[in-house]
Amino acid sequence: MIPLEEIRQISMVSLSKIVMLVIDGLGGLPDAKTGKTELETAKTPYLDLLAKQGICGLTDPVSPGITPGSGSGHLALFGYDPLKFTIGRGVLETLGIGFELKKSDVAARGNFCTVDDKGLITDRRAGRINTDKCIELCKLLGQIKLEGVELLVLPVKEHRFSFVLRGKELHAELNDTDPQKIGVAPYPSKNTKATAKHTAGLINEFIKQAKRILAGNHPANMILLRGFSKLPDIPSMSEIYKLTPAAIAVYPMYKGLAKLVGMEVFSTDGGIQEELKILTDCYNKHDFFYIHVKHADSAGEDGDFERKVKVIEQVDSALPQLLNLKPEVIIVTGDHSTPAMLKGHSWHPVPLLLYSQWCRPDNAKEFSESACLSGGLGRIPATDIMPLAMANALKLTKFGA
Amino acid sequence: MIPLEEIRQISMVSLSKIVMLVIDGLGGLPDAKTGKTELETAKTPYLDLLAKQGICGLTDPVSPGITPGSGSGHLALFGYDPLKFTIGRGVLETLGIGFELKKSDVAARGNFCTVDDKGLITDRRAGRINTDKCIELCKLLGQIKLEGVELLVLPVKEHRFSFVLRGKELHAELNDTDPQKIGVAPYPSKNTKATAKHTAGLINEFIKQAKRILAGNHPANMILLRGFSKLPDIPSMSEIYKLTPAAIAVYPMYKGLAKLVGMEVFSTDGGIQEELKILTDCYNKHDFFYIHVKHADSAGEDGDFERKVKVIEQVDSALPQLLNLKPEVIIVTGDHSTPAMLKGHSWHPVPLLLYSQWCRPDNAKEFSESACLSGGLGRIPATDIMPLAMANALKLTKFGA
Repeated sequence: MIPLEEIRQISMVSLSKIVMLVIDGLGGLPDAKTGKTELETAKTPYLDLLAKQGICGLTDPVSPGITPGSGSGHLALFGYDPLKFTIGRGVLETLGIGFELKKSDVAARGNFCTVDDKGLITDRRAGRINTDKCIELCKLLGQIKLEGVELLVLPVKEHRFSFVLRGKELHAELNDTDPQKIGVAPYPSKNTKATAKHTAGLINEFIKQAKRILAGNHPANMILLRGFSKLPDIPSMSEIYKLTPAAIAVYPMYKGLAKLVGMEVFSTDGGIQEELKILTDCYNKHDFFYIHVKHADSAGEDGDFERKVKVIEQVDSALPQLLNLKPEVIIVTGDHSTPAMLKGHSWHPVPLLLYSQWCRPDNAKEFSESACLSGGLGRIPATDIMPLAMANALKLTKFGA
Repeated sequence: MIPLEEIRQISMVSLSKIVMLVIDGLGGLPDAKTGKTELETAKTPYLDLLAKQGICGLTDPVSPGITPGSGSGHLALFGYDPLKFTIGRGVLETLGIGFELKKSDVAARGNFCTVDDKGLITDRRAGRINTDKCIELCKLLGQIKLEGVELLVLPVKEHRFSFVLRGKELHAELNDTDPQKIGVAPYPSKNTKATAKHTAGLINEFIKQAKRILAGNHPANMILLRGFSKLPDIPSMSEIYKLTPAAIAVYPMYKGLAKLVGMEVFSTDGGIQEELKILTDCYNKHDFFYIHVKHADSAGEDGDFERKVKVIEQVDSALPQLLNLKPEVIIVTGDHSTPAMLKGHSWHPVPLLLYSQWCRPDNAKEFSESACLSGGLGRIPATDIMPLAMANALKLTKFGA
């Protein structure tokens, strides 16, 4: 990929608009009976039309064979090398609930969990306690005092919370206390770099006090912390691309990611119809729009082939609302594949559709994995999508003399 | 390619098995009359079936246009960037005869050669003296004493031997003494870095004494040394991939390479049938198997199109033995191309076949250069093969948050 600094040098402002529609976990694997993937099974007349008029390809979010997490997959879509810019789980979770992290904060993803009399974990999610209970317990833990630092325990959803340490000289080079399995005790916090020793001590003190406070609160009688991290030092999309980017998303993590790269975030609890209504409303004020559709991934993770097909069909039937706006560039892709067959993220390359007035024609007559395989964009790193979108929006000048 | 350190972080142990069948010099060029390459000419019903059920592509061992040596080609197959990890010819030759090099040893590939009265080379291979003669002469040269260091002269085959200097402060930054042509005198040993000056002096003393000892031994009356090198600092495949890898090979160099990356080496003098018998025998004790078929390359180097076709057909007809084991992942590829038309290694990308339960379908209905050209894996660096094999064996977890 071309370095971001080079893109910054050649990017320019123009009136044209780019819409990037991300169908989370879009790529799939064929059903044994029909030989067709989720995307190939779905009836998608509008996507097929876009594929026919535009150009298709397949992307590797990280590298061939590598299954990306959601953070890595999205960073690549926004043009940031996920091997260079890494985002910790703690930062992602915390940004996602709209909390403004400072550069010196250390954040972790927290779980309420259940431990038995011996202190061994019996349920990593404390029976998925309801969110009200989570809010109540976070308040209790938020009253813990640690010397010289501020601490925040922020409820997320069900058993999940964010833990933030705020103060001077804090470091995030720490092991998870979550062993990611049951039948063992939570790990103590340990620093992986000498400079983080003081921070590890503070966290162990917090855990000790939390254990005492939660003792009578079965099933939520203990906590697990993982993904200790600080904000990455990442240039914004306005710096690099000179865009005024907007994000339209439902789920916290994706809103957090969008904020991280400097997007203005528009939140909704609705589906794609609602998201596209927001797009219409804010269309004049921005020139780049990231729209996130979560439920294709959720269906894939549940192994529900049919539901994933339906989500894709819903997106397709809502498309006229988007097409009516006549954006100069439309990108439709995913942040990774989530084949229902595998019930999880996978390494398979992701279908990519790019529509603009300036596409060179290819043989893709529909939007499908097999059509993308022989599409004109070939198989490219996902980090190439933004330069291609910018080029097709005529927002990049020549490179070099 | 993704850095090995990242792979190490996400690799995990599982019961699944990976078999990597390397047909040396597999890729070819079409015969002028038929328009078909060696692989396309060969009748390969089993490989075609695997290609149909699996996914195909083409690989570049080093980079487009670059013709790899056997060491570079194999390192790439095992996932090591051949531009980063370089293996000297001396090390390779020495490992290949089962000799255990120490990290401080300097090794070189040696040839017995013929010089005339003026000391000019008339035959770089001393008329390919027989191996018994080679053993006898190596014994003589092994008696040479050099101050402060130990030296070993290890017979290989015919005119070939390994030369090892063992001691403190030895350096391998040395020119070859083999001019790779006749009609000139062997070069003296010269250091290319100041630190290797002492080592160069030791080698010149050795050559001086060797010349005296061999004087009456026409045609083997002199020696040539090349590929001075030390063991590269290379992490093992068990460290990176958490595999318990096995190698099944006939030729010394390939066994040496496999040892270098930490494989257990199973040796045989037989053909592919015998190699697959060994595979069956050791199948339960390992989870990765590298099987090397040399003779396709030898036939290519001899410019013998028909013989290369036959070697490929022999491999194909032995395949049921492999398929019966039902490994989760099968890779069939080469370490480079060796078109009979070119009588040597070439830069042409190498056909690649990956079979697993989790392959996304592509249009390759047979194993051939032309089918691989439109295969679903596209054209990828050979270093991506291992991550893909690991992913398809479900031995890699998610990358990043």
